[in-house]
Amino acid sequence: MTRFRLHIAFDGRPYMGWQRQRHGPSVAAALEAAVAEITGESAIVHGAGRTDAGVHASGMVAHVDIVRDISAFRLMEGMNARLRLAGHPIAILSATPVSDDFHARFSCIERSYRYTIICRRAPLTREAGFAWHRRHALDLPAMQEAAGFLVGRHDFTTFRHVHCQAKSPVRTLDRLEVSGEGARVFVTAKARSFLHHQVRSIVGALVFVGEGRWRPEDMKAALDACDRARLPINAPPDGLAFTGAKYPLHRS
Amino acid sequence: MTRFRLHIAFDGRPYMGWQRQRHGPSVAAALEAAVAEITGESAIVHGAGRTDAGVHASGMVAHVDIVRDISAFRLMEGMNARLRLAGHPIAILSATPVSDDFHARFSCIERSYRYTIICRRAPLTREAGFAWHRRHALDLPAMQEAAGFLVGRHDFTTFRHVHCQAKSPVRTLDRLEVSGEGARVFVTAKARSFLHHQVRSIVGALVFVGEGRWRPEDMKAALDACDRARLPINAPPDGLAFTGAKYPLHRS
Repeated sequence: MTRFRLHIAFDGRPYMGWQRQRHGPSVAAALEAAVAEITGESAIVHGAGRTDAGVHASGMVAHVDIVRDISAFRLMEGMNARLRLAGHPIAILSATPVSDDFHARFSCIERSYRYTIICRRAPLTREAGFAWHRRHALDLPAMQEAAGFLVGRHDFTTFRHVHCQAKSPVRTLDRLEVSGEGARVFVTAKARSFLHHQVRSIVGALVFVGEGRWRPEDMKAALDACDRARLPINAPPDGLAFTGAKYPLHRS
Repeated sequence: MTRFRLHIAFDGRPYMGWQRQRHGPSVAAALEAAVAEITGESAIVHGAGRTDAGVHASGMVAHVDIVRDISAFRLMEGMNARLRLAGHPIAILSATPVSDDFHARFSCIERSYRYTIICRRAPLTREAGFAWHRRHALDLPAMQEAAGFLVGRHDFTTFRHVHCQAKSPVRTLDRLEVSGEGARVFVTAKARSFLHHQVRSIVGALVFVGEGRWRPEDMKAALDACDRARLPINAPPDGLAFTGAKYPLHRS
């Protein structure tokens, strides 16, 4: 048996999310079907993060165990050929044999997400499905100030989906950066792990600050309240992408 | 009558090109239909550049004359509402009243294009339709050296579509830059005007250099030959976007 680490990009629009679902297509199920076609094995593909419906990835990491003797290159090429044939907008960017103690989810020490917002009156064209469309300009310095309150170790109950299954609402947010480039605003978030909907909830609140409906200090008050009802708005999945996962000794 | 300058973005995939066509949808026809619905006038929308089928725009400039009394803001909002309703991935980013001597095509002193190439074995996912997919890494310094031969005033017959209607094959290429960002390679071109297929032809030849199938000097030899048959490959429309048009005293 060989364990392979996969580096994956996908357009999340057609999927219910990363995780296999009873009703509807998932990225993991598409990958597992491709593996099964190549190897005849019903292997499970474990991902670094469980992205929601409509959320994209430019740098998802996963692992899969294959009993049959197959090279990483053949696995990658075979999976890409089958995914393409089945019409899945999913690509295996690389495949690498790794030791058995590597686990895409449990070994991961840092996950990165990037959220894209486009601020303009006109509707989105080429960016539709890949960005959150806001009709007014955002106050970046105010958003940056508000973001500062969230960095570090906190109880993120306010920024957590009510159905979040994590045992603890405490997480350490290592980085939360707001940057702009013309009409585009990017929010980059890095942490060892995130709560369900945490990034989208944070982005929603940051946009509330950017639009002047909250002062930066309101972000701190909402965080301190540890109350989901304090969240003004949850950002849609469109703008979110899983951009990378880090491992000890590994980088992807 | 008021002349309005329009700043436009569009996803070029559904269109035969910018220019109104007898058989098939065009960006100009979609814009003209929107104007007609708002004003009841059958005005012509003149664009700065005539993009090909499948070519995109993030900064197209156009002008239109409206007899009816309407503000630039109402025109923009009305056009966006109608374009959206009709399912057109076209957006009016801004509308500005301009003097009657402004002509989007004839007053333009500089046009800019950007071409995106993605180099990786894996198929494209989110970028499909918006980039040229090449399976091997490109040698950027070699491409940059080759690009240097094309900058300036030259007879671009080699890099011109056989059906190009321009009277002269001589053009002055002001800038031609090759840059990279991970697996992405960008080619930026600026000139007062371009020949039909000029950017795509140049990109095709640059990729030939980047893949080591041509030496940089072969680019000069091909240019000097003034022979379309010397062009090794024409880049597909997917990766191309019209990014901006400059005017005296105006900037967009």
